[in-house]
Amino acid sequence: MRLAPRKLAALFAVGAVGGLIGDQAHVASHATRYLDDSLPFVWKSELWFPVAVGLGTASLAEIRLRLAPAASGGFDLREALAGIASVLAVYATTAVVTDEATGTSVALTTALAALVACRFASGWPALVCGVIAAVVGPALEIVVVHADLSAYGHNVDGLFGVAPWLPALYFAFGVVVSRLAELASDPPVAQDVHG
Amino acid sequence: MRLAPRKLAALFAVGAVGGLIGDQAHVASHATRYLDDSLPFVWKSELWFPVAVGLGTASLAEIRLRLAPAASGGFDLREALAGIASVLAVYATTAVVTDEATGTSVALTTALAALVACRFASGWPALVCGVIAAVVGPALEIVVVHADLSAYGHNVDGLFGVAPWLPALYFAFGVVVSRLAELASDPPVAQDVHG
Amino acid sequence: MRLAPRKLAALFAVGAVGGLIGDQAHVASHATRYLDDSLPFVWKSELWFPVAVGLGTASLAEIRLRLAPAASGGFDLREALAGIASVLAVYATTAVVTDEATGTSVALTTALAALVACRFASGWPALVCGVIAAVVGPALEIVVVHADLSAYGHNVDGLFGVAPWLPALYFAFGVVVSRLAELASDPPVAQDVHG
Repeated sequence: MRLAPRKLAALFAVGAVGGLIGDQAHVASHATRYLDDSLPFVWKSELWFPVAVGLGTASLAEIRLRLAPAASGGFDLREALAGIASVLAVYATTAVVTDEATGTSVALTTALAALVACRFASGWPALVCGVIAAVVGPALEIVVVHADLSAYGHNVDGLFGVAPWLPALYFAFGVVVSRLAELASDPPVAQDVHG
Repeated sequence: MRLAPRKLAALFAVGAVGGLIGDQAHVASHATRYLDDSLPFVWKSELWFPVAVGLGTASLAEIRLRLAPAASGGFDLREALAGIASVLAVYATTAVVTDEATGTSVALTTALAALVACRFASGWPALVCGVIAAVVGPALEIVVVHADLSAYGHNVDGLFGVAPWLPALYFAFGVVVSRLAELASDPPVAQDVHG
Repeated sequence: MRLAPRKLAALFAVGAVGGLIGDQAHVASHATRYLDDSLPFVWKSELWFPVAVGLGTASLAEIRLRLAPAASGGFDLREALAGIASVLAVYATTAVVTDEATGTSVALTTALAALVACRFASGWPALVCGVIAAVVGPALEIVVVHADLSAYGHNVDGLFGVAPWLPALYFAFGVVVSRLAELASDPPVAQDVHG
């Protein structure tokens, strides 16, 4: 593994908690609802949801560092918080625009995701992570919806049962996870000299 | 002309496509509607709209470079995308706030336009471009509305028939077009030596 | 006093005008309403409101500079405008989300406040100012609401009668006031040598 177990655990925790915060907004705004209660709930989410987002975050961070080494290592708390807050702002915005026309909500979410990418993408590996998230995330949610575990609201189920702004939200998520992976990686100079 | 034909064509295309994206959000949210169908429609817009935004974009870029040479030339894709996405985010936000009170929608749009200007304005020529756009754009739209070609919704027609947040949106547009013109211009050093 | 009277007056004016702009959005969106009219109104606000925000702004700026000297002095109009516009954007956003579920509006406001802090906080004194504002501001508003001078709408009175997103909004305000105080302070080098 490119990342030490405690770093992967931290990334899992960031993803799980961030997922819980965003998901409670989606549930509160009726963007999504759970149809199944075979597992316990954490806040407004069924247990599998934060676990899935946490695993996705840690996995994507590991993928990022296998694509290419981070150009600059070393942790920067402000940069990490800014990235996490950016994705949560887009996540909460999608909850706010649940009742908007699809053309409006997709345009706003896509523009915001592009801004997040312009700010946090360090290069092509970040974009690859964004695209992986934008494809795999919605695909898994489509499977979940068709398994009747959860459902999107009538106004936000236009993409095979999930929200049309989901790829843009996942793209922003993937780019920021890529940035978090870089911040969590060891500085490349230290690796070159002592590694 | 300060800009080569292919660069003016690219700016026309950016303006036309950006206008189509924003306008479909305005139409979808019932901020605006077309009253005339004598020309064909592209997506949700009547043909004259993307043409007008494209011509406005290319013209304003040319005006920018006639006001003063760009302090720093050379293209930067990330900067260009960030500017375009910023204007589209404000554009889509105006669609989201169509049903809000005028005091709220104008305050939000103006604050966002100020942030865009703080981020992308390189100096006084950018502000001049912003002011030109903020005056000419809404004035032309007022003419269009009074010619019964299109109409704004009842809640967003308080500025002589057009939306009160239109000057702020056009101001952000003008500042970013100024930045795109600078990015599209040739580096000043090369001009000084070889021009 | 750490700040000259004319600088404190300018900070008072910025706070008073910014408060008026944000408050008219809150009144227009029915987030808040005034129950008392014993004092004259300025725009949509009763006179005590802009005075209180102005005094709070100047006081917090003075507190900031008593906590620690500004690391870098010297005024920067663009930085000041960006900070002010950021707080007004969050302020207006809280008006837009008045009708949203509490979980959604608090998540969005908190994420935006975190972004403002990541952008404008210069260090721990900025965070202290943010926390002071986040505690004192809502506390005073709770007193005002219980004195029947004003009231929050039914959907936004869940925090002892005031809006649950109020601490996040005040936190962003406090961090930016801290930044404005730094910008208003004299350069530290000049103070060290000639002070």
